[in-house]
Amino acid sequence: MESLAARADLRAALDEVHPEGDPAIAIARVAWSVAAEPGDGVAGALIASMGAVEALEFVQSGGGALAEPGRAGRELRDGLRRWAVRWDPDAISRAVTHARDVGARLVLPGDAEWPDELSDLGPHAPSVLWVRGEMALLRAQPRVAIVGARAASGYGEHLAGEFAGDLAMNGAVIVSGGAYGIDGAVHRAALGVEGATVAFLAGGVDRPYPQGHQDLLQRIVATGAVVSEVPCGTAPTRWRFLARNRLIAAVSHATVVVEAGWRSGSLNTAGHAAALGRPLGAVPGPVTSAASAGCHRLLREYDARCVTTAGEIRELWAGAESVARGESASPQDPDRTRLLDALSPRIAVVTRELARRSGLSPERVGALLGLLELEGRVQRSEEGWRRADR
Amino acid sequence: MESLAARADLRAALDEVHPEGDPAIAIARVAWSVAAEPGDGVAGALIASMGAVEALEFVQSGGGALAEPGRAGRELRDGLRRWAVRWDPDAISRAVTHARDVGARLVLPGDAEWPDELSDLGPHAPSVLWVRGEMALLRAQPRVAIVGARAASGYGEHLAGEFAGDLAMNGAVIVSGGAYGIDGAVHRAALGVEGATVAFLAGGVDRPYPQGHQDLLQRIVATGAVVSEVPCGTAPTRWRFLARNRLIAAVSHATVVVEAGWRSGSLNTAGHAAALGRPLGAVPGPVTSAASAGCHRLLREYDARCVTTAGEIRELWAGAESVARGESASPQDPDRTRLLDALSPRIAVVTRELARRSGLSPERVGALLGLLELEGRVQRSEEGWRRADR
Repeated sequence: MESLAARADLRAALDEVHPEGDPAIAIARVAWSVAAEPGDGVAGALIASMGAVEALEFVQSGGGALAEPGRAGRELRDGLRRWAVRWDPDAISRAVTHARDVGARLVLPGDAEWPDELSDLGPHAPSVLWVRGEMALLRAQPRVAIVGARAASGYGEHLAGEFAGDLAMNGAVIVSGGAYGIDGAVHRAALGVEGATVAFLAGGVDRPYPQGHQDLLQRIVATGAVVSEVPCGTAPTRWRFLARNRLIAAVSHATVVVEAGWRSGSLNTAGHAAALGRPLGAVPGPVTSAASAGCHRLLREYDARCVTTAGEIRELWAGAESVARGESASPQDPDRTRLLDALSPRIAVVTRELARRSGLSPERVGALLGLLELEGRVQRSEEGWRRADR
Repeated sequence: MESLAARADLRAALDEVHPEGDPAIAIARVAWSVAAEPGDGVAGALIASMGAVEALEFVQSGGGALAEPGRAGRELRDGLRRWAVRWDPDAISRAVTHARDVGARLVLPGDAEWPDELSDLGPHAPSVLWVRGEMALLRAQPRVAIVGARAASGYGEHLAGEFAGDLAMNGAVIVSGGAYGIDGAVHRAALGVEGATVAFLAGGVDRPYPQGHQDLLQRIVATGAVVSEVPCGTAPTRWRFLARNRLIAAVSHATVVVEAGWRSGSLNTAGHAAALGRPLGAVPGPVTSAASAGCHRLLREYDARCVTTAGEIRELWAGAESVARGESASPQDPDRTRLLDALSPRIAVVTRELARRSGLSPERVGALLGLLELEGRVQRSEEGWRRADR
């Protein structure tokens, strides 16, 4: 650690990417993000219990707990071996200088910009975040993740754009994964209404991925934010996509899947949201469309809430139960319905005959007719009662 | 009552429509079905507590409980007045002779054909059922209601037909309401595979409704059953449609709504199913289709289960939790994924480099490579390991 903190290039770059706070902690956390893959729970637990600097010193000293028996000891020994393979002061230094070169900022737990919700990930929380763009968006509220299939249909992209545009226009930060298909439609719609949007990448923030979204991601950097937990220069891998999904779910107050195939990666994001207790919505679609199969699966297997409008998505995080269960689905007063059935708009009918037709007592019919007359639903004449069809 | 039982025309007709059992009970129940509208809970409670014959005698004697105070007394007094308006021995006699003339049979609680599930309706259970066709279908198992909008789309009618055909072919009795749109598609599909189907009507079984389904209902009578609780000659009214819906829900082991507008009558059927604790399924559709709005409402507000295939409908009544929550949605062993990410199909890579790329310890990499080799997922060579892409 001493040798790292003494490196002039690293310290100069660090002053730019993370000007405040203790440089030793920042360097230790960057070192951890280089040595451990995203979501490494053993590293996370070690950092949480000892602090990042102390955990790193402990590891570099060989790990005093090597002799510990049991599962925790085995896991730690295995961790020490895999981190050792990646231990590289140059790589740590490059992570910081490279970030500086692309204008990225480093955000650490405890910083004003760090989203506290990430602590719900426990030992799987990221050790750092690299951010290009507007850092304040990491904590702006509400944040809603809208994600979905790369192989989206026109239906899905249309809805994704509608929802994201509406929500962004009304002040929500739209979080997604920067991918083709639904993610792209979501980011574009948010940018289109000059709303706020954040893209979480599986690789470094210096690597626009996919290539075809280079311009889109550049536009997001300009007014929103592009975020990753892995250092600049890191390639996206399938594992890192899966790990990245937990960040999207954890950082967002609600997650909505617009379209997803049966085995879509979006289900993984949804699974994280559900596991974290975040509200989860799924947009239904034709059962004949493979692109909606994953959404229907979320409705069936994950207790996802069926959402069909931006307003229903807002209800997810508002926790609003404004649409009461069953409200207005049942008919009005059944007696009213039966009496209106018995009335005719053309022929006047006397009360007793209305009672016979409707199966209500004459007294009840009389009382209801009085109410319906006040509402203008029936008309009285010398011959009897008519329905006033409006 | 004595005078009714003495009528020769009534007794002769009754011998045909209900040959077994006590004629006095049959006549009393028919009298109740003439005097009270479907679902009259006061009549139902009276019959349940006294028996149909005794309840009728009690009413005809003026009702000894007239003096009872409180809500129950008021309800009874109001009932006495409305039943008195409809008391008509000729109408009761006509109900039976008319049924005989169209070949309908009378089914009463306690009869071998009576579906016991109707008792779940409590005081709102029907006092009789009139059946044209195969009476045994009322108790054949399983019975599944498939209902939906009259103004159905091609999408909805297609799915309704697919599901009903599949389920009927596999032995389910398909229950529906005989209406245009989804109901019609459901009955036709069941008939098309020579399966069993039952139509519950809101009017008398002698009145094919809607008119345009005269032929379809005749075909249902021939191999299935057309059923109603109201006497022959009774017109369908809006109230009777709503009341009929409770029978469809109660008699079926599960209810599925295929398409429904925001205020569709099918939501009423669904509400009854939910209230009765029957499994309820809703088929999703495009959120841009008004014909699916009611189904999405069922998913949101009624905790309906999202069903997209005939198999998923079968799970409703099987109570099968065969698709375990979250199963196979998560990736396989994460370490496997990370190691496969690190491997290349073209270039052989040594174990230590695989450890560095994957962030796994060399020991873990070695162990996983052994497993993957057994599965044929990786190939070993002198230069190192390759991914065996298949």
